[in-house]
Amino acid sequence: MIFASDNWAGASDRVLAALSAAARHGGRAYGNDDHTRGLTRRFSELFEREVAVFLVGTGTAANTLGIANYARPGGIVLCHRHAHINVDEAGASEFFGGTKLVGIDGRDGKYTAEGLARMLERYPEGNTHYGQPVVASVSEITELGAAYRPDEIAAIAAAARRRGLALHMDGARFAGAVASLGATPAEVTWKAGIDVLSFGGTKNGCLAAEAVVFFNPAEARDFAYARQRAGHGFSKAWFIAAQFEGYLADGHWLDLARHANAMGARLAGAIRGSESVRLALDPAANEIFAIMPKALDARLKAAGAVFHPWSAETLPVEERPGKDEVLVRMITSFQTTAEDVDRFAALLAAG
Amino acid sequence: MIFASDNWAGASDRVLAALSAAARHGGRAYGNDDHTRGLTRRFSELFEREVAVFLVGTGTAANTLGIANYARPGGIVLCHRHAHINVDEAGASEFFGGTKLVGIDGRDGKYTAEGLARMLERYPEGNTHYGQPVVASVSEITELGAAYRPDEIAAIAAAARRRGLALHMDGARFAGAVASLGATPAEVTWKAGIDVLSFGGTKNGCLAAEAVVFFNPAEARDFAYARQRAGHGFSKAWFIAAQFEGYLADGHWLDLARHANAMGARLAGAIRGSESVRLALDPAANEIFAIMPKALDARLKAAGAVFHPWSAETLPVEERPGKDEVLVRMITSFQTTAEDVDRFAALLAAG
Amino acid sequence: MIFASDNWAGASDRVLAALSAAARHGGRAYGNDDHTRGLTRRFSELFEREVAVFLVGTGTAANTLGIANYARPGGIVLCHRHAHINVDEAGASEFFGGTKLVGIDGRDGKYTAEGLARMLERYPEGNTHYGQPVVASVSEITELGAAYRPDEIAAIAAAARRRGLALHMDGARFAGAVASLGATPAEVTWKAGIDVLSFGGTKNGCLAAEAVVFFNPAEARDFAYARQRAGHGFSKAWFIAAQFEGYLADGHWLDLARHANAMGARLAGAIRGSESVRLALDPAANEIFAIMPKALDARLKAAGAVFHPWSAETLPVEERPGKDEVLVRMITSFQTTAEDVDRFAALLAAG
Amino acid sequence: MIFASDNWAGASDRVLAALSAAARHGGRAYGNDDHTRGLTRRFSELFEREVAVFLVGTGTAANTLGIANYARPGGIVLCHRHAHINVDEAGASEFFGGTKLVGIDGRDGKYTAEGLARMLERYPEGNTHYGQPVVASVSEITELGAAYRPDEIAAIAAAARRRGLALHMDGARFAGAVASLGATPAEVTWKAGIDVLSFGGTKNGCLAAEAVVFFNPAEARDFAYARQRAGHGFSKAWFIAAQFEGYLADGHWLDLARHANAMGARLAGAIRGSESVRLALDPAANEIFAIMPKALDARLKAAGAVFHPWSAETLPVEERPGKDEVLVRMITSFQTTAEDVDRFAALLAAG
Repeated sequence: MIFASDNWAGASDRVLAALSAAARHGGRAYGNDDHTRGLTRRFSELFEREVAVFLVGTGTAANTLGIANYARPGGIVLCHRHAHINVDEAGASEFFGGTKLVGIDGRDGKYTAEGLARMLERYPEGNTHYGQPVVASVSEITELGAAYRPDEIAAIAAAARRRGLALHMDGARFAGAVASLGATPAEVTWKAGIDVLSFGGTKNGCLAAEAVVFFNPAEARDFAYARQRAGHGFSKAWFIAAQFEGYLADGHWLDLARHANAMGARLAGAIRGSESVRLALDPAANEIFAIMPKALDARLKAAGAVFHPWSAETLPVEERPGKDEVLVRMITSFQTTAEDVDRFAALLAAG
Repeated sequence: MIFASDNWAGASDRVLAALSAAARHGGRAYGNDDHTRGLTRRFSELFEREVAVFLVGTGTAANTLGIANYARPGGIVLCHRHAHINVDEAGASEFFGGTKLVGIDGRDGKYTAEGLARMLERYPEGNTHYGQPVVASVSEITELGAAYRPDEIAAIAAAARRRGLALHMDGARFAGAVASLGATPAEVTWKAGIDVLSFGGTKNGCLAAEAVVFFNPAEARDFAYARQRAGHGFSKAWFIAAQFEGYLADGHWLDLARHANAMGARLAGAIRGSESVRLALDPAANEIFAIMPKALDARLKAAGAVFHPWSAETLPVEERPGKDEVLVRMITSFQTTAEDVDRFAALLAAG
Repeated sequence: MIFASDNWAGASDRVLAALSAAARHGGRAYGNDDHTRGLTRRFSELFEREVAVFLVGTGTAANTLGIANYARPGGIVLCHRHAHINVDEAGASEFFGGTKLVGIDGRDGKYTAEGLARMLERYPEGNTHYGQPVVASVSEITELGAAYRPDEIAAIAAAARRRGLALHMDGARFAGAVASLGATPAEVTWKAGIDVLSFGGTKNGCLAAEAVVFFNPAEARDFAYARQRAGHGFSKAWFIAAQFEGYLADGHWLDLARHANAMGARLAGAIRGSESVRLALDPAANEIFAIMPKALDARLKAAGAVFHPWSAETLPVEERPGKDEVLVRMITSFQTTAEDVDRFAALLAAG
Repeated sequence: MIFASDNWAGASDRVLAALSAAARHGGRAYGNDDHTRGLTRRFSELFEREVAVFLVGTGTAANTLGIANYARPGGIVLCHRHAHINVDEAGASEFFGGTKLVGIDGRDGKYTAEGLARMLERYPEGNTHYGQPVVASVSEITELGAAYRPDEIAAIAAAARRRGLALHMDGARFAGAVASLGATPAEVTWKAGIDVLSFGGTKNGCLAAEAVVFFNPAEARDFAYARQRAGHGFSKAWFIAAQFEGYLADGHWLDLARHANAMGARLAGAIRGSESVRLALDPAANEIFAIMPKALDARLKAAGAVFHPWSAETLPVEERPGKDEVLVRMITSFQTTAEDVDRFAALLAAG
């Protein structure tokens, strides 16, 4: 009953097999090996467009390097107030690009095109004191487990475009989003106006595999230098590339995500059927937020369930937990079993 | 006959096996798993002293974060003129710590305590224009394949200490150095005055495994934050830790290095026996630098040998290649076979 | 009727005379001249304590260098949501120290010790994702024209101290605060727990003169290097020092501030007597915030008054301007005349 | 007999008068005043071309912001080995742009087009390890007191252009160069291929006045933001603008420089006539480098002369001072009097 995070899981067999095969022989260093070189075509097929792909090892590296690619002096990055880049990356964007993150409010970890437009009004063009907005960033799946629909992204992109901002997507859980939305990777990204995507593999069956995908390759002119000077250029780059080969082959990545999402839905179903616990929002994928009595929280943990409390401030004031309640986050993964979920459900039912 | 670099090799079977085993189950995220936690004890035993260990994925990350740990405003980092941190890391130290690298000359990629002391005289204390020296860095094995002896390091450490500098060691090929010197890891490092070590695994049989080792754990107070905001904190940190488990068990790391060194010695022997090629210096480990006729260089490559030319400026003026000659670097690895070396030797003998 | 800002004013005669006298002969470069050297004693007397003083040319330089002096990796700087450092310095603190600014809410541009303590709870010690709080900053006078009382600062300092934070004061309008509070410079700063002060002269009669004052000189060990590499070390440092000599002599700085405050009070009085305009808060010094009908705003400007609109978000929701109203900021200076204020008052009275 | 540096001088009467006049009334803040706005036309006339002008307070600010305007990830800035930006700015360029400075050798503080081209060969395009050259910088007057002729600059510019580098000129002593070369400001700069100029006023009669001049205004798109976030945007910007008004009116700036140069020539003449002292190179302007016996150096100082020793490494090996000699730098200024020089000459003549 490990629902702490999807990054507590191991690696999928297919990913591990691909990595092990590549590891026997190695290859040319610094991304000139066949595995890494082949990924450009692989990702271009996946996204139905010629893309530039750069491999890195962590989501923070992908996000900050992707965003810093568009940094300019006095640069402002707009994102959701509770976005991972704003609260969970130890100031990485401030450090990498000297950019200032400005949070926008919104339900379910999502902000709207209107919310973005209103915030942009605070930054009149040419006001050197306030800084200049350079990037807007959305998380798909959001930090509260919701998914932006392509039309919502397109509206945000239009608002961003009107002020010349690049649009970044933190896709740490991109597979879960694609599986959940029933849309193609292209529809969720560049067809909706995304310029650069952090394509995450780590949380969904890889060991350490993230890709920065530029939908306009010319914009990535300096990225290889930026990655190298940040220490994110791996000499044995094939160790990431091979993971992605296994991950992407035969739709394995979506199979993994569908399983995690199904387990998430099963867990949400158990909560819906419970009298003492309520969902904070309808989950789109594998992140479940629920409000439960503190006493139950303690009993579940005593029974072996592992999950984290979450900040009540991520919810609207009127929906926050009561005095004896707690907001918790539970995440399923490709390794979560139905048995695990059902054991948890039984504990819930027992109150 | 791949002598391009030791980072063209794959991974050792034992390293891969340890990684695969860990990858089946995963663990707590961000270094709180058992694999990662166990490494502090493992490294402390290895170095006969309580150390602080931080895992990262690349040598550049290890070097720059280790050095930046001691950065101060106007900070000057002294290193060999041809040090990897000075010429091969795309300005990483300038980017991370805002530090300025200043190169010291010296044979074989080594500088001396006297060379360091002379350079320090250029930076009188309190001169805010020139900046303030904060770190001296040595590479063990050097970029020209030589090894600092512990007494040489101790002399450098004494010169550094007189001005309050921290002493960093770039140990990308630390295993090869220990194997070559016949000294203990402790003798090569803290007993000689090293404060922080980049302990490299990647070039010697790992996939991506580097450790920053602090010999005075209290000095690493902020390191976990610095690593995280640089995107070098891996969520599935066990993927590095497990590699090190396999790498360090039963002296495997030294076995791998001894093999690479033996293949280097075999290659050097073939060169010594050749009439047309000469060694640029006596190799200490697995990096061989040699001067050969350009025509031979072309024939060797045509026959399938892979190796890189090297800048003649790394040699004293009077020892540089002549007009029709070229300086080349050849590196052996744990995967290099005696057959490979002997094929190359036969090509040399054939002139 | 220039109420746009106190930095629209010229320089006071005494400041200009002191500058002109010094400019005839010059002096040793980079702060080794007699004017600059003498300021350490002058400021130490002023603050009744041995201090370290560093001259810079702008308030942003003073604030960011003073704060960056305490920066650490993953560093979080806590300040009021509407603090100048957070919204008006183009990301200077993010750029200089890689620090992340986190805004705290509070009336009148002030936050409380409780507000700070609550915010600090969000940053549990050792959580490398969230970053580590390193500095709290208060503005005295605040961006809404209020003054922190020494006991309020002391409470904030106590909360900051419990977590090891340094406490910074943005004293761009420090003279106005001292004049308004009837407290000594020492009581407003180190006696209340301030560690580092941006002591502003520019807004109160200097041309460009700001001082970073450290109340524990040992903490400023690296500051001269930090200032120099940021390009804020002036070769003819006496041009700032001489301004401060004129500014501080015979209490001139407080005379200037008392005049500006008196003009502010006169302006506030006129508003209190007006039927159509209301004060947004009781001003402590020379910054007046008022809500007026848009039509009146237009008429005043047409009559030659110069002042800026201000963001309604700086007020509590229930106190914000109505549909046909606007929040405006008016600032008096040492050059403001009673005639100017009275002309403005007459316009108000005429509706 | 103050020959320590031209920044030991005070301010010229005309500069001070212009500043004092402006200081009485002030003006709109942050460069929107009439003085500052007028400078764009003034500088455009001076350079016979439409330019963008940004005022800052120090030469280091001008150099580093001007260079950082062209910074890109992994950026390399090429300059003379002894350039001020490389040795005297406390790592400012490393700090501001994360750029790495690489020094080129050359006589008299000058490098050649060939020297630049050779250095650029070390940075093959696309090599992400070495970084990418982005800017070349020349100092006019050089740090050894020589002047680049326009044709020499043009040759360097051609070499820089072939690799897409911007060409920066550190014109801390630009007035002295123009006066010495008998060329127009345009001929020394954009007509020879300069993209951005640090136009210095401080060393030649201003108090603190430096201008960053872009000869292609479109390239300065982000400069105002970069200046603001670095704390170099002055609220009372007229205090710099007014200095430049006085400085540039009626050719005053060149009159000041001609005087300083004449005093330099008079000093050089005295040295040429001396038996015990020799010039290290023929001075172009107001910086005189000479080699003298240590005993004489001591006597001169005892008699009240003030000047600094200089690093012998700035000279070719065969021209360095002997065992009992010392290399010294003497600088004349607009305030240096013929009497002062003649007193010094008499001391020299007395041996």
